[in-house]
Amino acid sequence: MPGSPLLADLIEALRCLPGVGGKSAQRMAFHLLERERTRGLKLAGVLREAMERIGNCTRCRNFSEEPVCALCANASRDRQVLCVVESPTDLAAIEQATGYRGQYFVLLGRLSPLDGLGPEELGLAQLSARLGEGEIEEMIIATNPTVEGEATAHYLAQLARAGGVKPTRLAHGVPLGGELEYVDRGTLAHAFGSRQALE
Amino acid sequence: MPGSPLLADLIEALRCLPGVGGKSAQRMAFHLLERERTRGLKLAGVLREAMERIGNCTRCRNFSEEPVCALCANASRDRQVLCVVESPTDLAAIEQATGYRGQYFVLLGRLSPLDGLGPEELGLAQLSARLGEGEIEEMIIATNPTVEGEATAHYLAQLARAGGVKPTRLAHGVPLGGELEYVDRGTLAHAFGSRQALE
Ligand SMILES: [Zn+2]
Ligand SMILES: [Zn+2]
Repeated sequence: MPGSPLLADLIEALRCLPGVGGKSAQRMAFHLLERERTRGLKLAGVLREAMERIGNCTRCRNFSEEPVCALCANASRDRQVLCVVESPTDLAAIEQATGYRGQYFVLLGRLSPLDGLGPEELGLAQLSARLGEGEIEEMIIATNPTVEGEATAHYLAQLARAGGVKPTRLAHGVPLGGELEYVDRGTLAHAFGSRQALE
Repeated sequence: MPGSPLLADLIEALRCLPGVGGKSAQRMAFHLLERERTRGLKLAGVLREAMERIGNCTRCRNFSEEPVCALCANASRDRQVLCVVESPTDLAAIEQATGYRGQYFVLLGRLSPLDGLGPEELGLAQLSARLGEGEIEEMIIATNPTVEGEATAHYLAQLARAGGVKPTRLAHGVPLGGELEYVDRGTLAHAFGSRQALE
């Protein structure tokens, strides 16, 4: 940036944020300098702390700055149901969209042998041990409806059955509010084949 | 955010960035945690340093972490022309869009008596002293084409003439590539009244 190498550094550094190009980064830097110094400083501190301290929960592998995350530590949540997701983002989406009050397990990936992601990387031994504790009755498999996500779901279902736990899967179909002509063929074919009787 | 109070703090803190709402802030936080820890830490450091150290150049009032900014310190720039702008953002826009190689003076505002912004707040005594140094021959007035910006331009032109310096103003008119039907009435009327003979 003209006149200030430090401002140029700030604009460049802001580009690590997703969806932020040169123009947005410049607008952000000027906005912070002109109007939001206090909140900018606050962001700097929280960001450093988050990057340094947030790891993964030892029990569910969700993001957590404590050894056991606040969800696992919450004694009021249902201990009979476990929902398995690929990522903390998926966990957050389910928490925000549904009334689910059970436990979680985060794979931090999906089975993908070519990328070196096998049962060990996904913590499946830990998941089996968890099923073996005997509290869990249902395992909701919420991996993504991709080829790898489906393969992972298949593997997880076997794991659940081996542990005497009932596996369930999120329903697939036409999204609510979606118009048929814009739904992809695979989804439409699946929804058609899985049609249900009206009462 | 479910499970991590520190992650929730990070998402909240990211909302100080312009144009970043709850959804974007969440996407940014997850992106940094999952894929960009190193650049996230770098951003935290640069942001803190910028918020703490960037002040204003003692000579031109542009943003600068040094007493005299890199533009004022650049001996290869033309010392006979001074461009006056309202803000560092305007200075950056001119640097990026034009081939201007002269000096700048940043008002950090515009004359606005109701907001308590008078000649003192805009550093006009300092500007006069600068004109009095005798090097400057032309003062380009690049305040915004708003009511307050025009009033400021009028005041600045008098200041220039009093200092024996020639005031000039950016041309107004229809933006290049702009279609007449979308140009605002005031601009169109001005452009029409200021029409120029073709050679
Ligand atoms: Zn946990
Ligand atoms: Zn300067």
